[in-house]
This record gives sequence, C-alpha cells and structure tokens, in this order.
Amino acid sequence: MSQYLSPDVMEEIARDPSAIKLGGEKREMTVLFSDLRGFTSLSETLEPEQLVQILNTYLTRMSDVVFKHQGTIDKYMGDAIMAFWGAPRPQPDHARRACLVAIEMVRELEQLNAEFAAEGIPKLMMGIGLNTGQMAVGNMGSQRRFDYTIMGDAVNLGSRLEGLNKEYGTSIILSEATLQQAGPDVRARFLDLVAVKGKKEPTAVYELLATDGLSTNGALTNSRADFLAAYERGIDLYRTRDYISALTQFETALRLDGDDGPTAVYLERSRELAANPPAPDWDGVYVMTRK
Amino acid sequence: MSQYLSPDVMEEIARDPSAIKLGGEKREMTVLFSDLRGFTSLSETLEPEQLVQILNTYLTRMSDVVFKHQGTIDKYMGDAIMAFWGAPRPQPDHARRACLVAIEMVRELEQLNAEFAAEGIPKLMMGIGLNTGQMAVGNMGSQRRFDYTIMGDAVNLGSRLEGLNKEYGTSIILSEATLQQAGPDVRARFLDLVAVKGKKEPTAVYELLATDGLSTNGALTNSRADFLAAYERGIDLYRTRDYISALTQFETALRLDGDDGPTAVYLERSRELAANPPAPDWDGVYVMTRK
Repeated sequence: MSQYLSPDVMEEIARDPSAIKLGGEKREMTVLFSDLRGFTSLSETLEPEQLVQILNTYLTRMSDVVFKHQGTIDKYMGDAIMAFWGAPRPQPDHARRACLVAIEMVRELEQLNAEFAAEGIPKLMMGIGLNTGQMAVGNMGSQRRFDYTIMGDAVNLGSRLEGLNKEYGTSIILSEATLQQAGPDVRARFLDLVAVKGKKEPTAVYELLATDGLSTNGALTNSRADFLAAYERGIDLYRTRDYISALTQFETALRLDGDDGPTAVYLERSRELAANPPAPDWDGVYVMTRK
Repeated sequence: MSQYLSPDVMEEIARDPSAIKLGGEKREMTVLFSDLRGFTSLSETLEPEQLVQILNTYLTRMSDVVFKHQGTIDKYMGDAIMAFWGAPRPQPDHARRACLVAIEMVRELEQLNAEFAAEGIPKLMMGIGLNTGQMAVGNMGSQRRFDYTIMGDAVNLGSRLEGLNKEYGTSIILSEATLQQAGPDVRARFLDLVAVKGKKEPTAVYELLATDGLSTNGALTNSRADFLAAYERGIDLYRTRDYISALTQFETALRLDGDDGPTAVYLERSRELAANPPAPDWDGVYVMTRK
C-alpha cells in the first residue's frame, strides 16, 4: 500500500497503526476525479515510448500536488486520476484540501504545458470533479490483489461531475456538499441543477474559481468581478424564468469574457426557453438534447 | 507487478525475461471490461463490512476465470474489472481467450448468485465488453506508483461496449474486430452499427452467444435456433429498410423469447422507423433519443 499514500500519512500510520481500519467502513470523505481532454486520441498519433514518457511526467507532477495536501491516490485510469481525502486517517478539512489540490493541479498543468510546448507537445486541457459524502472505504479486490479504495453513489457523482466539464467548457466542477464544507474563501459560481441517483431533489453544482489562500492578492480583478456579476444576475433571472431579461445579462457577460463556456450554454438555453417556455411544474433540471 | 499477472505468465517471464518489454509499445491486443449492474446502489444499503466481503468474493472468483485463460488484470474500479490479453507475452489467440473468459464469467456469476441467494444477497447481473485492436501497453503511472496497463481508443471502445449492454439488455457485447479473430466456434448475433471515434464508417457490434468449446453439446436447442432465425431475418429486413416486414419477424422472435432485450429494442425502432422513414442517405446508425 505504500505507493498509494503520501509520505506524511504513511509516517502517521507507522506511529499509530490503529488510525487505519482494514475492514470496510463508511465515512464522510471527498473524492477527486481528473481527466485530460483528448489525450487518448492524441496517444494514437504518438510513438508509444513518447506517450508513456508524457503520461508518466503528467501523472507524477499531478500526484505530487495530491500528496502535498495529504491526499491518497486511489488509482490511475489511463490519464485519469482518482484521489480522496478523509481516510485512512480522519481529515476534517477533506473538502477544503481537495479544492486546493484541484486549483493547484490546473496551475501545475499550465506550467507543464509551457514546458511541453518547448518540446512541441500539444497543449493539454484538464477536467476535475469533486464530491463530498458518505463513501465505503476499505481494502477491496481479489485474493491476489487488494487496493485501498472507495466506492458508493457519492464516488460515482464525483466522476460524473468531472465529465460535466465537457458540457460547460469548465475545468473544475464541485457539488454543493463539497462547497459547503470547503470554507468561506473557496469561491465558486453556480453552474446548474443536476438530477442525482438516490435523491429526490436535484442538486446544485458549481464551478470552482479560486481561493484567497492561492490567488496572488486574494481579490478578483474589476473586469472579472463585472463579468461574474452579470453572469450571476443572468442565472438569478433564468431561475425565476425571466429568460428574456436573462439573455441580456448573459450577452453582457459574454462581451466581458467571450470564451466563457457556461455563459454560452446559458445564452443558448435562455433563447430556447424564451421561445418554448417549460411547464409550470418544471424542476429546473435542464435535460440536454445534444450529445 | 506479481499480483496482476496469472501464475502461468509469471513463470514464463521468469524463464524468459526478454518476453516483457518495460517501455511503452503498441500491440494488437484484446481488452475485457466487466461491470455489475446496480451494485454501487446496492452498496448504499449494505453494511460496509458486508459490502467488502461480497465484493472481494466476486472479484476473486472472476479474476480466477481471467487467470485460468492467462489474462492480465489491469485494474479493478469498484466492482468493475479491466483485463487484457496479448501482453506482456504475445498471445496470438488473445481474442478467443477473452471470449471464453467472458462466457465463463457469466456462468461463474450464475453459480455465485446461487450461493449468495442462500445468504439472502440479491441477484447480481453483469455486463461485459470486448474489443480487439492496436493498444499502447507499458508501465504507466507516477514515480511512486507504476501499473502495467493499456490505453488508446481501442481500449475506450471496449469500455463503451460494456456500457452498451444496458441499452440492449444483454450480457456480453463484442466488436467486429474481436469476433473476426475469435475463431469459427465463437457464436454471436449482430446487434447494431455504432459510430466509433477515429473511424469514418460505423462499426458492427455483436452479442456473444456461446462457444462449442463450452456449451454442453455444442448445439443450440431447436426453439433457440428458431428464435435466432426470426431475429436474424428481422435484422436483415430492418437493414434493407423494410420495417413493416421486420416488425413481423421481431414479433415472432419475441413470442419465442419474451425476455430478449435486443428484439424489444428492434421492435420499438421498427415501429418508429416505419412511421417516420429515415433519409435515403442514412448510414444505419440509430441515434438513441432516450437516456
């Protein structure tokens, strides 16, 4: 198991072996899923030696960020990384640590892209999903091979949120549960309501923006603040079903940031819903019709 | 790496270490993905100790089937298993071995379900996807943790075929590439044309039925043969766009096997396409509109 845990956690377990319970147990934890966009297809055009070298460099750099914040790497799946906080030792700030790691991973990738560019390697883009909830954790596997891993609906939701980044053109999506525990300086903007297995009510999901602990001066620039204000006014109007007024706000936001994926998504939806208003009992969950 | 490989393969590598190339390389291989239906949700209602016990029993039994046919377990992901053939040592019959394992896994699960029923554990259902093609294989991971693993579009297609079982109510779906190499006694029926990343033409996918090497007498029962004949006549008519005649055949097939998922799917599609014929340049790839 030594290769999966950060050295800090390993040391603590060596000092107090009772901190790790080897059977299965249920805990509130935070899971992180990350995935590179289009890397598998890129891998088709690379020589396998180069592929493995790029992949191993990428995974090493990202894993170091996870270990820096005392996370456990659950597994790699190709270029995807699954990591968690809250076990084997309790980490009451598991949600916050996962948020910090997500932001640092995106920054580390920017740095890595700059280094790769010098070697002629195309720019890599990343999506990250974070969720917090009750998860089963323990040594699972066959008699020949056990992994210390997690499972449950809350784990699956984390993976689903990772995939949602493709729909919104975002980098980090977190659930309401993670946001609520992340601490007041972890900033996010509302993205959407999604239907979640095993829950009657749709749950809100957010895009992680930055944290005071990490941004250089702890403040948004004025133009960024203006952009976010327009986006959030648009969201409020959209949620009260005033699609015409929402459109105006999203148009303002898009003028301030023409590359913003969520604004483009809501602009399109507002146009569609203004033309075809939903039924009065609509729960606000937008069912995507495109693939 | 010892925990990942079958004892046979380990012995062979010990005798001839040159058989395993430690850098990345590209090889034609066959990948197998399996997944339990609804196990994650079931896990929410189990005590974690019981969950881990059931999971570990399941994974041990299924892994033994993989090892029996000299496969390599790539990884477990919750209750999902990823395995491959064709590396580290060459296995020219990699497609055939994977097919035999898929069938034996389904049979092993039937046996396991009988044992679980005695303990009051609900019946488990499995989906398996198989694909054959060029894959990158090597030791991938971070400096702290390397896995001998595979990646590439051909790997991803195997995972996608596993998921397709949910659409058709089937247990084992394989690609045309796997079927072509599996040997004449590996039986399959045509399921559908699917669009595949990186290929211009849609590819045919099949349901694995049984193999002579495994069925008790190497022959289908008469009623099963009648059912398959009606299904296949329906498919032929459907592919020539004679949806009305196809409907009649699928109705016959459904009278012979009322539980057959693919027949129910084609009955619904034939009705829909009879009422709304597709454009003349339609490529035959049905775009699913339900979730």
